[in-house]
Amino acid sequence: MPKEQLSVFKIGGAVLEDATMRANFINGFAAIPGKKILIHGGGRTASALSERLGIETKMIEGRRVTDDDTIDIVTMVYGGLVNKRLIASLQAKGLNALGLTGADGNLITSMKRPKTDGVDYGWVGDPIAVNAPLLYSLVEQGVVPVLAPLTHDGAGNLYNTNADTIASTVAVALTEMYDVDLIMTFEMEGVMLDLNDPNSLLKEIRFSDYQSMKESGKIHGGMLPKLENAFKAIQDGVKVVRICKFDQINTDNGSFLQI
Amino acid sequence: MPKEQLSVFKIGGAVLEDATMRANFINGFAAIPGKKILIHGGGRTASALSERLGIETKMIEGRRVTDDDTIDIVTMVYGGLVNKRLIASLQAKGLNALGLTGADGNLITSMKRPKTDGVDYGWVGDPIAVNAPLLYSLVEQGVVPVLAPLTHDGAGNLYNTNADTIASTVAVALTEMYDVDLIMTFEMEGVMLDLNDPNSLLKEIRFSDYQSMKESGKIHGGMLPKLENAFKAIQDGVKVVRICKFDQINTDNGSFLQI
Repeated sequence: MPKEQLSVFKIGGAVLEDATMRANFINGFAAIPGKKILIHGGGRTASALSERLGIETKMIEGRRVTDDDTIDIVTMVYGGLVNKRLIASLQAKGLNALGLTGADGNLITSMKRPKTDGVDYGWVGDPIAVNAPLLYSLVEQGVVPVLAPLTHDGAGNLYNTNADTIASTVAVALTEMYDVDLIMTFEMEGVMLDLNDPNSLLKEIRFSDYQSMKESGKIHGGMLPKLENAFKAIQDGVKVVRICKFDQINTDNGSFLQI
Repeated sequence: MPKEQLSVFKIGGAVLEDATMRANFINGFAAIPGKKILIHGGGRTASALSERLGIETKMIEGRRVTDDDTIDIVTMVYGGLVNKRLIASLQAKGLNALGLTGADGNLITSMKRPKTDGVDYGWVGDPIAVNAPLLYSLVEQGVVPVLAPLTHDGAGNLYNTNADTIASTVAVALTEMYDVDLIMTFEMEGVMLDLNDPNSLLKEIRFSDYQSMKESGKIHGGMLPKLENAFKAIQDGVKVVRICKFDQINTDNGSFLQI
């Protein structure tokens, strides 16, 4: 029996931080027909609050070191401010959005990231299980789940978790129930070899191409973990994985990944 | 056909602020059998964050004046920090807790409070509708909904809403589906005529008694709006309304209201 279609969207914190970009994204997202789920970031808002509170933001290779103060800040910003503003905005567009962290309904269990190269990232967790039936039940009731990048360990602790990883993990977990598309959005047009040259957009990326571009250093920085998550999704059963600009979700623009 | 039983609990911010009291409440709440919902406050944590951010907390007759900065603060504290900490703690006790604001799933729509005696309370909303089927669906799936005192107007705005009012409104909305008990908890033993005299606890309060005690000034201050909400619940079909100490929810102690 053919499965129904579900689209999983990821939106980054930088877009949400800007009122005009946020409104553009929300309008586009609301116009997408069918069943859908949204995962959001919020790192810039968290860093801004940390600064106002005089708490140092410590990033190592793009990952936030999450000490006791910082897990409180991201819980407030991701689970509260960013998530609930999105929910209220989507409700105003007629979408029955409902916000969740990984702790809510035991949605995403994670494990504290082990020390990596001597670095203790603190309250940073990597997902180990997704409660897919909960998402299925909500989606089938016409709800649009909106996920904040927080998880829990089942022992009372909350963890800061990469939003791209959550998007990829959730998309894969739902492939049992749906034909899943994963659309990861940000400020760029897609995966570009030269950020200053729009013609350098890669419309299709095969895993073998990605591996050689990674080795040669043609793709680097924050795009690497994003592509790792994206390839994991398509390798684990997600039908379509696209990386595109936040205001292009209703088009076929951007970079499509191939196994 | 007899209806099934559901218990609606309210816990105040002062108890949640204290680690020992919070743990006591959570242990008691987790031990309560059957279907249940929790509504929490968080005012003290919000005031503490406001102070750290150099934002003045303005209270008029116990109500927080909620300007643009303050709605962001309560969204972070109520919807994020307080709610998600509770969810993680309850999950650790084996309860499948799931946190919601009034915007999530369009759970509680509210209307901005009109100017009262010349005072504009800002982003303060009074509930006008509850999405009871959503709560029913969650409860029937074995979920324990945990509600933060935030609502929305359906036009994209979030509102700060009194947690006692939410508890009372939600309890009444669920009387169509369940026999509902409402248990409002705080630091005191119940409704007391003299806070320094444990023997002054009122074990039963009739509405007529309440009215005369209100007129004579025997009951005053923050207890008045709490009792207004509590009497509204029992007058509108809630079976049992009890006001008791946070660590007494598994007993029959406290003040019981009578129509």
